[in-house]
Amino acid sequence: MWETKKTRRTIRKYQERPVEASLLDELLDVAARASNTGNMQLYSVVVTRTDEGKARLAPAHFNQPMVAEAPVVLTFCADANRFVRWAACREAEAGFDNLQTFMAATIDAMLYAQNFADAAEEAGLGLCFLGTTCYNADQIIEALRLPRLVVPILTATVGYPADPLPDQPERLPLRAIVHEERYEDYTPERIDDLYAAKEALEANQEFVRINNKKTLAQVFTDLRYTKANNERFSDVLMETLKRQGFIK
Amino acid sequence: MWETKKTRRTIRKYQERPVEASLLDELLDVAARASNTGNMQLYSVVVTRTDEGKARLAPAHFNQPMVAEAPVVLTFCADANRFVRWAACREAEAGFDNLQTFMAATIDAMLYAQNFADAAEEAGLGLCFLGTTCYNADQIIEALRLPRLVVPILTATVGYPADPLPDQPERLPLRAIVHEERYEDYTPERIDDLYAAKEALEANQEFVRINNKKTLAQVFTDLRYTKANNERFSDVLMETLKRQGFIK
Repeated sequence: MWETKKTRRTIRKYQERPVEASLLDELLDVAARASNTGNMQLYSVVVTRTDEGKARLAPAHFNQPMVAEAPVVLTFCADANRFVRWAACREAEAGFDNLQTFMAATIDAMLYAQNFADAAEEAGLGLCFLGTTCYNADQIIEALRLPRLVVPILTATVGYPADPLPDQPERLPLRAIVHEERYEDYTPERIDDLYAAKEALEANQEFVRINNKKTLAQVFTDLRYTKANNERFSDVLMETLKRQGFIK
Repeated sequence: MWETKKTRRTIRKYQERPVEASLLDELLDVAARASNTGNMQLYSVVVTRTDEGKARLAPAHFNQPMVAEAPVVLTFCADANRFVRWAACREAEAGFDNLQTFMAATIDAMLYAQNFADAAEEAGLGLCFLGTTCYNADQIIEALRLPRLVVPILTATVGYPADPLPDQPERLPLRAIVHEERYEDYTPERIDDLYAAKEALEANQEFVRINNKKTLAQVFTDLRYTKANNERFSDVLMETLKRQGFIK
């Protein structure tokens, strides 16, 4: 059971074979059966297939090659605009320009995105989710012409996987992410136990060496997700949430 | 294909039959194969099975009966704490107390939650996601003793579905949620087209009548998701994000 889920891995290299439009439509439709807030479906997805469209998006994703190379790029957006426009047409005034609505819409968009990903992988497609979307939400808003009350949250590049498939990365043991009844905070001893297998992996040790760091954690804190970048892009995102009307 | 996804519906009534611990563990483990940010797995899940634990959570969910009645309640949390504690043990200093990390952790937690939901439904379980989690995140933090850099985002009640199964609710047509290449904003004519089937449903018309409203949209804006509540709970959430260290 759960064979697709158990064997999945992120796919960054794709065959040239296009994704059939009818298949993509069916996947996008099936995905909408995911739960959402009050059945308001506070999300939208922008489908990019053209070279021009991908070229417009690529800089926002730091020109990672899969944006240009994937047959399809999907931008999953938190979207309160459609609902508010419906309300305006129906003698109703929606008070949806606030943080709670942004969170509800983000949750809706992410449940939809994951349901899409799972359905797509069952159909033999491969995906890569790009976390750069929240970093450069302002640029994506401009590239996709997203109106007020719409914010891009996550992007997926989609296509048929090229051979060879990448290795499946490790995950922390289940006891690292599950808490029984109440949150049990992590002691140094428990951290050692939970991260031992991850740190012992040859691939991760190599990652430390080639980056000239002492520990695997340093690769993340000093190179991949630095405080300076996190704070800079947090400021951009906060400004973007204000401009899009979700925060006063 | 995608039979489970196509036929799923939210389940709010459960059999008394417990969810086997081994099954729950397997589901929580399979779910972790979902994509996440940089393989940092910035999420945690708190499992509540005891009556005392459910009683502590129930008020935060406005005492919706499924919290007390479901065999299992899961609280999916955005969690940067574990990573930061790991870094602290490894001569690394994580700059993760900011909005970008909160968004990355929220995305991670939601992809994990949906992957769990889908795997659980494949195993014959039923779920209800509770959006009240973000409304009363402060109360849930206290009930579950969540430390700094951990915020609850979404709750699921889980169990074997009781008969009869509820009807499957409608969804907007695919063209309502998909945009090709760029966002095409909604005109009143398009809104009429996209919402016509939803508004014509007898169940929704009844919903308008029993709530003594003129339009379906008014049920949402005037009763279910009011501006006053949205703004009040947005203030609570903003304070909570500051207290948990994600916003300065």
